[in-house]
Amino acid sequence: MYVTRRATFSASHRLYNAELSEEENFRLFDKCASPNGHGHNYVLEVTVAGEVGEETGYVLDLKELKKILAREILDKVDHKHLNHDVDFLRGVIPTAENIAMAFWNVLAPAIPRGRLHSIRLQETENNAVEYRGEQK
Amino acid sequence: MYVTRRATFSASHRLYNAELSEEENFRLFDKCASPNGHGHNYVLEVTVAGEVGEETGYVLDLKELKKILAREILDKVDHKHLNHDVDFLRGVIPTAENIAMAFWNVLAPAIPRGRLHSIRLQETENNAVEYRGEQK
Amino acid sequence: MYVTRRATFSASHRLYNAELSEEENFRLFDKCASPNGHGHNYVLEVTVAGEVGEETGYVLDLKELKKILAREILDKVDHKHLNHDVDFLRGVIPTAENIAMAFWNVLAPAIPRGRLHSIRLQETENNAVEYRGEQK
Amino acid sequence: MYVTRRATFSASHRLYNAELSEEENFRLFDKCASPNGHGHNYVLEVTVAGEVGEETGYVLDLKELKKILAREILDKVDHKHLNHDVDFLRGVIPTAENIAMAFWNVLAPAIPRGRLHSIRLQETENNAVEYRGEQK
Amino acid sequence: MYVTRRATFSASHRLYNAELSEEENFRLFDKCASPNGHGHNYVLEVTVAGEVGEETGYVLDLKELKKILAREILDKVDHKHLNHDVDFLRGVIPTAENIAMAFWNVLAPAIPRGRLHSIRLQETENNAVEYRGEQK
Amino acid sequence: MYVTRRATFSASHRLYNAELSEEENFRLFDKCASPNGHGHNYVLEVTVAGEVGEETGYVLDLKELKKILAREILDKVDHKHLNHDVDFLRGVIPTAENIAMAFWNVLAPAIPRGRLHSIRLQETENNAVEYRGEQK
Repeated sequence: MYVTRRATFSASHRLYNAELSEEENFRLFDKCASPNGHGHNYVLEVTVAGEVGEETGYVLDLKELKKILAREILDKVDHKHLNHDVDFLRGVIPTAENIAMAFWNVLAPAIPRGRLHSIRLQETENNAVEYRGEQK
Repeated sequence: MYVTRRATFSASHRLYNAELSEEENFRLFDKCASPNGHGHNYVLEVTVAGEVGEETGYVLDLKELKKILAREILDKVDHKHLNHDVDFLRGVIPTAENIAMAFWNVLAPAIPRGRLHSIRLQETENNAVEYRGEQK
Repeated sequence: MYVTRRATFSASHRLYNAELSEEENFRLFDKCASPNGHGHNYVLEVTVAGEVGEETGYVLDLKELKKILAREILDKVDHKHLNHDVDFLRGVIPTAENIAMAFWNVLAPAIPRGRLHSIRLQETENNAVEYRGEQK
Repeated sequence: MYVTRRATFSASHRLYNAELSEEENFRLFDKCASPNGHGHNYVLEVTVAGEVGEETGYVLDLKELKKILAREILDKVDHKHLNHDVDFLRGVIPTAENIAMAFWNVLAPAIPRGRLHSIRLQETENNAVEYRGEQK
Repeated sequence: MYVTRRATFSASHRLYNAELSEEENFRLFDKCASPNGHGHNYVLEVTVAGEVGEETGYVLDLKELKKILAREILDKVDHKHLNHDVDFLRGVIPTAENIAMAFWNVLAPAIPRGRLHSIRLQETENNAVEYRGEQK
Repeated sequence: MYVTRRATFSASHRLYNAELSEEENFRLFDKCASPNGHGHNYVLEVTVAGEVGEETGYVLDLKELKKILAREILDKVDHKHLNHDVDFLRGVIPTAENIAMAFWNVLAPAIPRGRLHSIRLQETENNAVEYRGEQK
């Protein structure tokens, strides 16, 4: 059984690889490398897989998952600049892929029942990524 | 190939385990244990997996799946109270997880071609579950 | 300038006019009169009209409107039964129209800047009402 | 007859009134004053009112309105920082209200047939403003 | 009080003015003049304005409006070609504007309580029109 | 890691098997066999699976996938009749299942990094298919 909690946050970012020249950054990231940054309303969907408890009928109380997401993720990224303001993203190019992997590393040990199954991060209505813990 | 039919229904429920005290119920289910119940517009997505037929280009005619969903599920739960009015939910704590498993048991034998692959049930715009028949 | 705050709540209700017979109620309200009630995820949109303040660039800080909605409306109706649990709906047939008018009467005096312009209440993805204070 | 074209853009901003102290800014704008800014996927809906032409059946070809929006607005704000990168927002606190009024001033003279009726700007899934040219 | 019923239908059309040359049609309508036609999932929103009845709490039972829409509109346009299959669109260039006006003429006399207030027709997720009966 | 690009297109089609009688076609496809065709706003979601590149933080730049989709698919199907106007659908009954398989065959060799994982095609808000390359 898979249970999913959806949340949104608003943040800004700039796609920029500090080891490359300005020119190479614009070739790679185009308008996403715009110097003053830009932003998104990110939609985050966190899915936990597990057995349904007999006493509760829950895999995991989604109100509890809501609190974990608020404490571990949303309080740290909402209304922030992802390149500058977030401890666990320091030194990371904040593509949706890299953000999803960073969220996985923060959330996986914080899930109290079942196991983290996937992190889906939608950046715009047309672009999304999903990470299931395959890659280290 | 996976084909999915989406449907909605409006129902009320109360999360309450009759074997526990009132106090334990409120600790477990919080406002979801509110005595007079509350309700949702549930969004149900039923996915069938199978081969595409050469004559029809269909796995399963979704108009046929629509009729099966109406007859087996929607006519029984739409505009109903899930704790009191639904035969196949009698004695079940109507969490989204338990409802999805009950729907699976009703629908799996009713699919005429292909096999039932998943039941997704969205309770609110932020909470959803998906069941793929793993747990008995 | 019009500013709109959207919020959702989950509640149950039964459409039933106590002055009519059971039979007339079913003729009028059909499955909406189902005795144990049913429920919805209501989507509420509250619009305030006013001038934009020069110091703030706001008509009204929507974070403030969010708090007003939580205190005056959502805390009283979310996860509740609208026929039984809500003071300001006592004796009212809880159609979307009547709920919207009741919300108007609660909210109009609570708006600190500008004036309440409209209350839109969506009951299902296909049914909605909007009230602009015309009818007493 | 009213015709509406919808478009989206991703931008960052910071709510900050340069004439007030840091402390007053945080009291007024709270987390929206976060120093490195944050961002949104804005949804813009531009509505033009007019008569339907007999030859075309159009008020205004929406493909033409699409091009006007791209040239006058989207190319200037998409993937940009609204406080720093946009000529027509210089010196403006970039609240949704002020952005909508600035867009009105840019677009109103650029509409070739009919007249600009409203600009709706949605900042998050819960917050939106609509401007109809009332305030100067 | 305004009550709105939403419905969808799938149809094809071709934008083509028979009094103009092939060349002028492509200049005016571009890819919308593609000879074999193309299609849309139209979203129709019909709004009726009126007083709330004391006995029912309804302006108009939306289940009744649903039946009127099915009988007067949807049965005639769903899964049809709007240039060839619909009596009340014969000789009309089927732009969203013209379809909305034709729907108005069919529906206005069929509304049993209150009065037709607006017809909104969404052709794609970015294009919509709204008609309020102003133009004859 | 899975990355998904969403796109929409508007097309018409008719479900019709030329090897069957008119009568059998209507029995199989019902109103979908309507002689002049009908249409949809299709929503296409293309998912590519792969490793995240260290230099870019991307599996595949979604702006590049956007261009591939435009060139290989959207330019050929948008505002077209799927039975008549599309080379790679010639002789195919254009059900959502068959369209998704045809898109797979076009796209799989065109993905420059990672591998095509799934094609999801939504025909209406209630009907969708997903293909993952299983069937030849």
